[in-house]
Amino acid sequence: MDIKYDISKYKNQKTEIVKDLVSVEEPLEMRIKFKKKNNWETQNISITMRTPGHDDDLIRGFLFNEGIVEKINDIDEVSHKGEVVGDYNIKNVIEATISNTSNLDIGKIRKNFITNSSCGVCGKASLDAINILKKEKLDLSFPQIKNDIIMKSPKLLMNEQSEFAKTGGIHASALITDEGEVVVTREDVGRHNALDKLIGYSLKENLLDPNRQFIACSGRLNFELIQKGLMANIGLMVGVGAPTSLAIDLAKRFDMTLLGFVKKDGFNIYCNKKRIILKN
Amino acid sequence: MDIKYDISKYKNQKTEIVKDLVSVEEPLEMRIKFKKKNNWETQNISITMRTPGHDDDLIRGFLFNEGIVEKINDIDEVSHKGEVVGDYNIKNVIEATISNTSNLDIGKIRKNFITNSSCGVCGKASLDAINILKKEKLDLSFPQIKNDIIMKSPKLLMNEQSEFAKTGGIHASALITDEGEVVVTREDVGRHNALDKLIGYSLKENLLDPNRQFIACSGRLNFELIQKGLMANIGLMVGVGAPTSLAIDLAKRFDMTLLGFVKKDGFNIYCNKKRIILKN
Repeated sequence: MDIKYDISKYKNQKTEIVKDLVSVEEPLEMRIKFKKKNNWETQNISITMRTPGHDDDLIRGFLFNEGIVEKINDIDEVSHKGEVVGDYNIKNVIEATISNTSNLDIGKIRKNFITNSSCGVCGKASLDAINILKKEKLDLSFPQIKNDIIMKSPKLLMNEQSEFAKTGGIHASALITDEGEVVVTREDVGRHNALDKLIGYSLKENLLDPNRQFIACSGRLNFELIQKGLMANIGLMVGVGAPTSLAIDLAKRFDMTLLGFVKKDGFNIYCNKKRIILKN
Repeated sequence: MDIKYDISKYKNQKTEIVKDLVSVEEPLEMRIKFKKKNNWETQNISITMRTPGHDDDLIRGFLFNEGIVEKINDIDEVSHKGEVVGDYNIKNVIEATISNTSNLDIGKIRKNFITNSSCGVCGKASLDAINILKKEKLDLSFPQIKNDIIMKSPKLLMNEQSEFAKTGGIHASALITDEGEVVVTREDVGRHNALDKLIGYSLKENLLDPNRQFIACSGRLNFELIQKGLMANIGLMVGVGAPTSLAIDLAKRFDMTLLGFVKKDGFNIYCNKKRIILKN
């Protein structure tokens, strides 16, 4: 599932408004329904950020791959629940009914799913839950970053991205000033960890100055990365790869500037281009 | 942090044993310690798969970015806990002491961290926990896949990877036969979701035949993907990108064949090359 956004494409010193196709990212709450002492109970088992479509395959595969059911036939049926929400005419809750509960250990499920990343959203329109974490919009006046600094950022990331150069298998985030100086870089196999490490260090050492700095990330930009950037009042986030729909929607809601597909001769501006100085 | 593995590099019809640098992936259990009615309490808040190093930055950034602390100075100190485990002489538990608990809402933490992916490992040597899910090693005799089918797999992934072609921002997994036929492909912004969808569908439709099939994934291969593949008895997993240390270790333990950096003229074999027919 994808959706078209109007974006500004900057390339070879020209900017044009184009339609850009973006992969949809929406939360899915997965539940199981099972019989306990002759009563039906439901239990939330996971919230994942997914591309809508084949949600039934997703919950079946998840339940099997995580060892929650032993055989695929232990799942009797799968159906969407709740309201149609958001812009895509979809439901974001799915429930699997399990009749053979001989292998089901609810305690084990609970333990397994206290885990690595958080979205804080559930079966409601996804952006509504974010307001809990972030209260105000960002100030659109800052930072002001020149286009040539933006186009240098993949190189700045890679220069410092020592581990990537060696293994090819790691993500990096960098805090970069409006003069193109790298303040700090952090790397991790998890891109959300690389960003947490970057922001954690910058805050502790009092290096963060959102009025004069932006953050560049080596991969794609998803909901989770934008959420983390917002918490640190980062006005401009730059990705070497593509953003997801929810990343763009979240950036728009809080007046963050979001750039993707940054290369040495151009980049895509997904929203709030006021922070980019498009001079030659 | 990285580690050298002895791997077989197949390129231009030749195979050689080389040392390959791989990024380390290890679990980190994050805890907070706080005062409640004059007693110190500890609470697990997250388990993440991370590259060791700057763990203190990671927990600080995580606590701030997730809104668990309001100011970075609410964190008094951070220290590793528990035993030195695994091959890297590191500790996989880190604890932050928080004295200003006026903003701390434990219920909110619990709610936020029932979330998207699971590893089932905690502050012990990471692979020990996996045995709970997977009992036996795979049969090393099957599947038998010819090198030219392997080298075609990125193309097979992309051909079917319609969404990727359109947006450039999505992951794909494909189930491919020993004759190079694509059985099914699934795509998602989350690579673990793409694999869950693939396996869920294949099992439900009774299409899975691990003796004659393998799975190819568009990105890097981490611990989580290998764990899911093992549950479905997949003997050969192929990544277009790099594997992590824990992906290789897990594949080795259960006799899965793991290939990375697959291109049209070669690939890296990280373990169990017996399943690959290296003929010309």
